[in-house]
Amino acid sequence: MMPLHALTDASEIDLRLDKVRKIMRDMSVDALLLSDNANVFYTLGRVIAGYVYLDVDGNCIYFIRRPEGLTGHDVEYIRKPEQIPGLLEKRGIKVPVNVGLELSIISYADVMRIKALFPDAAIVDCTPVMRMARSVKTDAELQLLRRSGIKHDMVYRLIPQLYRIGMSDVELQIEIERRSRLEGCLGQFRISGQSMELFMGNVLAGENADMPTPYDFAMGGKGVDPSLPVGADGTVIAPGMSVMVDTNGNFTGYMTDMTRVFSLGELTELALKAHQCSIEICHRMCREAIPGTKASDLYAMAVDMVERRGLSDYFMGHRQKAGFIGHGVGIEINELPVIAPRSRDILAENNVVAFEPKFVIPKVGAVGIENTYIVRPGGLECITGSPEEIIAL
Amino acid sequence: MMPLHALTDASEIDLRLDKVRKIMRDMSVDALLLSDNANVFYTLGRVIAGYVYLDVDGNCIYFIRRPEGLTGHDVEYIRKPEQIPGLLEKRGIKVPVNVGLELSIISYADVMRIKALFPDAAIVDCTPVMRMARSVKTDAELQLLRRSGIKHDMVYRLIPQLYRIGMSDVELQIEIERRSRLEGCLGQFRISGQSMELFMGNVLAGENADMPTPYDFAMGGKGVDPSLPVGADGTVIAPGMSVMVDTNGNFTGYMTDMTRVFSLGELTELALKAHQCSIEICHRMCREAIPGTKASDLYAMAVDMVERRGLSDYFMGHRQKAGFIGHGVGIEINELPVIAPRSRDILAENNVVAFEPKFVIPKVGAVGIENTYIVRPGGLECITGSPEEIIAL
Repeated sequence: MMPLHALTDASEIDLRLDKVRKIMRDMSVDALLLSDNANVFYTLGRVIAGYVYLDVDGNCIYFIRRPEGLTGHDVEYIRKPEQIPGLLEKRGIKVPVNVGLELSIISYADVMRIKALFPDAAIVDCTPVMRMARSVKTDAELQLLRRSGIKHDMVYRLIPQLYRIGMSDVELQIEIERRSRLEGCLGQFRISGQSMELFMGNVLAGENADMPTPYDFAMGGKGVDPSLPVGADGTVIAPGMSVMVDTNGNFTGYMTDMTRVFSLGELTELALKAHQCSIEICHRMCREAIPGTKASDLYAMAVDMVERRGLSDYFMGHRQKAGFIGHGVGIEINELPVIAPRSRDILAENNVVAFEPKFVIPKVGAVGIENTYIVRPGGLECITGSPEEIIAL
Repeated sequence: MMPLHALTDASEIDLRLDKVRKIMRDMSVDALLLSDNANVFYTLGRVIAGYVYLDVDGNCIYFIRRPEGLTGHDVEYIRKPEQIPGLLEKRGIKVPVNVGLELSIISYADVMRIKALFPDAAIVDCTPVMRMARSVKTDAELQLLRRSGIKHDMVYRLIPQLYRIGMSDVELQIEIERRSRLEGCLGQFRISGQSMELFMGNVLAGENADMPTPYDFAMGGKGVDPSLPVGADGTVIAPGMSVMVDTNGNFTGYMTDMTRVFSLGELTELALKAHQCSIEICHRMCREAIPGTKASDLYAMAVDMVERRGLSDYFMGHRQKAGFIGHGVGIEINELPVIAPRSRDILAENNVVAFEPKFVIPKVGAVGIENTYIVRPGGLECITGSPEEIIAL
């Protein structure tokens, strides 16, 4: 038997629940019933199979199917969700006016099943409530993100030592994966959206960076199999190619996102210029991305810097372009805010954002950097501190 | 530009589509609109972002958002699903009476959006159609599964060489992961059900095997972080402990599932007896699991063999028990048929099934084997051929 909150401090959970409840009130959502693993982890500090019921009156009940053995005042074991209404009634919790479900995440069949449990309540989408709450991190979450950043940095600094002459992109990626795992990387790469898939990150050598993928990542790659057409494709690393490394920074349940470029010998003038442009965009963001800044303004600022340098053809891909230059990170790799032209997001203090202004240069490959930053009153705090220039293999 | 069917032979795709259409007719489903990656991969031979429209009249149109550059008579590029009805009309394809969507997979919000495109059609759940079609493999799929089995076996045979005295379960798992990846493992571990998560498989040493998890796998484990509470927990491997290895067999987009047990020195009598029972159950399945056999009868047969040996307390877990002893495998690790007490599935020729009658022995750990088998007229063909006895590290 283990107390429910043995893994995450109860006061930390209360902080998070208070934040969720404030947004629920702003959006007139009465109660939530959550089952998405990322949201369950956020509201409990651990993953369970079951449901988290949370209302604006201060109730938070964990309905657990598995694992057995958790204890706490707010725990109810269930076999099926149909038991939930009776158990709420037994606790004297009144039927809410509306119930927020994760309509943009969980399946239609699951929603219909849950909807039937609350015949007198309206069903609303609580996906935005949870995305908004999770976008502003608590101090404890920031500490976990900083810890991931430190480990992530340690791995990236070892990459030149992992490289051997004659290696393919896949072989280098495998050694980076191993090193990451030995430093404590959990491997798991949580992504919002059921059609997003990627294994442990992306290593792109040379022209493979220009291969379009079905996925909505900043960069592409052919992959080694049509069942997972993204990333490294077996290209043998050769002089004059860029090797872009963008691999998993999930060391704590909270992910940092970091990209660095490696090469054997010098890259072309154009590639160096584009890489320098990426660094300059990131540095300018560090000063200008303060709470209150519009995400769309940051996007426009980056595009303007790229245009002035005559690099637009290569920005965010060449044959196929990504529509964003940055995104929130945390429990999932694609959180709010989104840094895109039509984003309505406005930066808030303690958002954690990955900026990745990147370029694909024909015949060379991908260049540019990505860092994860905490939004602070005076600008961005970078938590992925590896050297930003192109690194010799 | 690349022809749509460059990656998988068009006649193979036709075979699969014919099979799907036959089940559609049996279930009175007029047309399907698929977007789940596993189903898209099945009906196209590669992953795209978009939709596959398939009807019983012989039409199959691929509506693609990404990647750019695919060509073919049956390709339509779209920016958003709202373009689909107009494009179908333009091709003279009449509005179907009903449209099957993956109601048990895709989100409620996605379903509502698609539903609005077909105001004159009924919406039905096509998840069972696709699960049934995919459960009977084509010859080409069987070849991919056999290929995965050969690679999977090669990796497992190297495990004793990967072990070093003093290693933890996590460290051994990392070396197995690396070896798997070097043999061509794609890493990706496709699981049906949005709450199922696992990174590259499960290595369980000693008593950690008895730790319940939230996930619906045959075995558990604490994991190293509450964000992913399953599997290896850092236990240092010691004499007298079993080390159960059940790791990723996805080398071809089609997964084999295999479990073997390793140990330092001898395990207890009870553990050896249980392991032997697992092997005997599998061998008996090989003879008796022929087309037409009820899955529930196979489950009962296994339970009977376990009871006769007095091993029921340990079967399929000790503190928390799994409710099945086998499952179909293919593009996903949890396909049909399900070998469970209340399963209504009946074995069919060319089903591919993983049987995993396992035990958790207190103070020792997990024992038992798992193999992947093709259902043949004369019995099961084992495609994961590593030695089945407990292997010395």
